[in-house]
Amino acid sequence: MDATTAIASDDLAARLRQALGDDRVITDSDGLEPFLHEERGLYRGAAKIAVLPRSTEEVATAVRICAEAGVPVVPQGGNTGLVGGAVTGAGEVVISLKRMNRILGVDAIDYTMTVEAGAILETIQNAAEEKDCLFPLSLGAEGSCQIGGNIASNAGGINVLRYGNTRDLVLGLEVVLPDGRIWNGLRALHKDNTGYALKHLFIGSEGTLGIITKAVLKLFALPRERHTALCVLADVDHALALLARLKARASEAITAFELMSGFALDLASAHSGDAKPIADAYPWFVLLELSGSQGGNALRETMEEVLGEALEQELIQDAVIAESLDQAAVFWRLRERIPEAQKPAGASIKHDVAVPVSRIPEFLRAADAAVIAARPGTRLCAFGHLGDGNLHYNLTQPEGMDPQAFLDCWREMNDIVHGIAVRLGGSFSAEHGIGLLKAGELSHYKEPIELELMQRVKAALDPSGTMNPGKVIGTA
Amino acid sequence: MDATTAIASDDLAARLRQALGDDRVITDSDGLEPFLHEERGLYRGAAKIAVLPRSTEEVATAVRICAEAGVPVVPQGGNTGLVGGAVTGAGEVVISLKRMNRILGVDAIDYTMTVEAGAILETIQNAAEEKDCLFPLSLGAEGSCQIGGNIASNAGGINVLRYGNTRDLVLGLEVVLPDGRIWNGLRALHKDNTGYALKHLFIGSEGTLGIITKAVLKLFALPRERHTALCVLADVDHALALLARLKARASEAITAFELMSGFALDLASAHSGDAKPIADAYPWFVLLELSGSQGGNALRETMEEVLGEALEQELIQDAVIAESLDQAAVFWRLRERIPEAQKPAGASIKHDVAVPVSRIPEFLRAADAAVIAARPGTRLCAFGHLGDGNLHYNLTQPEGMDPQAFLDCWREMNDIVHGIAVRLGGSFSAEHGIGLLKAGELSHYKEPIELELMQRVKAALDPSGTMNPGKVIGTA
Repeated sequence: MDATTAIASDDLAARLRQALGDDRVITDSDGLEPFLHEERGLYRGAAKIAVLPRSTEEVATAVRICAEAGVPVVPQGGNTGLVGGAVTGAGEVVISLKRMNRILGVDAIDYTMTVEAGAILETIQNAAEEKDCLFPLSLGAEGSCQIGGNIASNAGGINVLRYGNTRDLVLGLEVVLPDGRIWNGLRALHKDNTGYALKHLFIGSEGTLGIITKAVLKLFALPRERHTALCVLADVDHALALLARLKARASEAITAFELMSGFALDLASAHSGDAKPIADAYPWFVLLELSGSQGGNALRETMEEVLGEALEQELIQDAVIAESLDQAAVFWRLRERIPEAQKPAGASIKHDVAVPVSRIPEFLRAADAAVIAARPGTRLCAFGHLGDGNLHYNLTQPEGMDPQAFLDCWREMNDIVHGIAVRLGGSFSAEHGIGLLKAGELSHYKEPIELELMQRVKAALDPSGTMNPGKVIGTA
Repeated sequence: MDATTAIASDDLAARLRQALGDDRVITDSDGLEPFLHEERGLYRGAAKIAVLPRSTEEVATAVRICAEAGVPVVPQGGNTGLVGGAVTGAGEVVISLKRMNRILGVDAIDYTMTVEAGAILETIQNAAEEKDCLFPLSLGAEGSCQIGGNIASNAGGINVLRYGNTRDLVLGLEVVLPDGRIWNGLRALHKDNTGYALKHLFIGSEGTLGIITKAVLKLFALPRERHTALCVLADVDHALALLARLKARASEAITAFELMSGFALDLASAHSGDAKPIADAYPWFVLLELSGSQGGNALRETMEEVLGEALEQELIQDAVIAESLDQAAVFWRLRERIPEAQKPAGASIKHDVAVPVSRIPEFLRAADAAVIAARPGTRLCAFGHLGDGNLHYNLTQPEGMDPQAFLDCWREMNDIVHGIAVRLGGSFSAEHGIGLLKAGELSHYKEPIELELMQRVKAALDPSGTMNPGKVIGTA
């Protein structure tokens, strides 16, 4: 950064302080540190200013001042994203939503909740539960991620099969636009066909079209029963057959249908200290959950029937139905620890792909073969949301290999894995988004006409290009 | 139309014929007639040319030829819309999708169906059912409306409470853009966070951003049981309380929760010849349906329990649970005949409003009082999708009044009813859209900033303004 920029930065900080108050603006390096951190350690932010507004109007003021100065802004939530979507370049200003963390209201008649963008996901889940409601979005980072970031990245998670992606859980939004004006789309309506779907444009745009400041969320009735089972499978094709049977028999009750490779489960078990509920070695495990609001025994009986038939027909080799909430929690802990459990096993190259559900086995066969052919000994740590056609197709380095040497294969592995997913009609980013990390993949895999449409949308809503530049569609 | 335009029109027709073949282009007045018709009789189209392509490429060719000639095009599906969204102005060209009516594939493993835009909704429902699947979109016009129009207008209907609006039922789209290029977004993925939600921009844009030519639809398991009840209520507040109980006890099973005023049901009964299942006069009726894929008796028992408790506590005055599919069909026929049954009762002024579910009673009290104060004797034919907060707040003229005199109050009544809905945080067009009919309401009720965002989107995707001009956001 040269002297001119440094002076401009001081000047900008002074203007922001004057407009918002000293405690809203951070410029010291200790204070800035958390805003420069990036979850995966792939990037490091370079901002010299972070603004922490306490209201939508303060966000609007900060954005307006930056826009007038021609300075790009980068919105930040809990900073738990996995694609570098909140990383700042030199001279860019962080706008953190962390102080706008209030639950503004829970309406148990309407089954809606109004929140500020900085509210922590877990706080929202708890606030819903207190009113006998469910906010179903659930994912690994829920203790620290913020709802604004979940919405901006259209987060997925473990309950999408039943309740949809974050997009499906948002009724209304308030957004600060790139010029600092406020769009009030904070409606609590299930039906509203009055013009273009602006709400959906902002959802999943990763802060490149505006800063989400408030949202109206959709709640559901709290299930009165929940049944969790862990199944053992010899073949991933059988997982599809099991899912089909469950859909036919208990469609609306299937809350989760998660696939885990035997290797992934072994890692998680070793890492968490939880014994595997089924000790033998098997190639695949499915964690499934049925839940319902009726109570009674019907759902449990259905689960037992379907699993019993599946055992008889050797679709599954074994199954354990959790007999307590504690046991169900162990099953889930094993599933959720997988990403972390990969760390002690060495370097990892991770993918977040989706294909049509029916093509999951084909994807796995093709990707496994191609990966092993390219780098023999690579350990396949595949797991994820089979019911949504979404796999975290993660690769753990061969034993004894130099970690950096494996990481140097990142590009090569991405090309193999994303190429196969796209060839099968799939996506190279199912739920994590694009950010900086996959902006190159976006321009590589998307047809020129789709890229052009996205660029036109970006230019229409952020003509000066100061809203989280370089993310999603890259630098215009 | 002056001579120059007429010549241009002949010339354009010749160019279209040359490119597409004679049988693709209609210019004779008998042939054009169906494309100039407008469902409500409020408008009449003025096009001299209708193009009936048989493929996406033919749509693209037609659009490109028109775009090069600077001639606006108006996409048409089944022409059953209620807001004049497919009406042509002089010199505009109809592009009808009726010949692109194929089901391209049903995948019962993926629970998806790929269709051409001109496929009739009922044909799609049946094709799903043949594979033991459900396509849940259901509305009055299903025998003639086309899926492309349903998607372009984000149709609602009777199953939104459980399955969402059309938007929620579409996984992928193929769209011919205003310049005649083709966007291939025909993906069958449940998760795909790769850039801006272009799909959602086209859904609900009423043909003003492009012409939808194909879609991948989301299917569900066919329910194995369905229980339908008609309840009698003394007070509309009780309907909310009944809905809350059902949500707590059978949330995921509630397929429909429809409100009908006593007057609306009387009209429908007189018109259809079906006796009312409950003979006495009551102010409100609720038609509710639970469905599930488990089979067994649990859901029926839950319905009986909830209705039994509601009777005891006088939330409902009476209830009939349909004992056969035939009886359930009678209940539904009464509900579905209401709009048609209004015709013999004289002139009608219709509204399609939404408010947060909890504010339905407040809306009804305020609107009833204001309407009666303005035009005493007006008969209140309110009915609709209470579970979604969506009412068709229809008004039937006072007995003996001159029909035209009542229709002259259209503007006044709209102002009253839409004003109250918007004041309660609601929408003046819940599921019918904007078209020509409500373009004025859109510019009246939307904040300038929202209108500006929509205009920017329109200009970005249809810079020459030739795609269904004047609809939704009016003439730029």
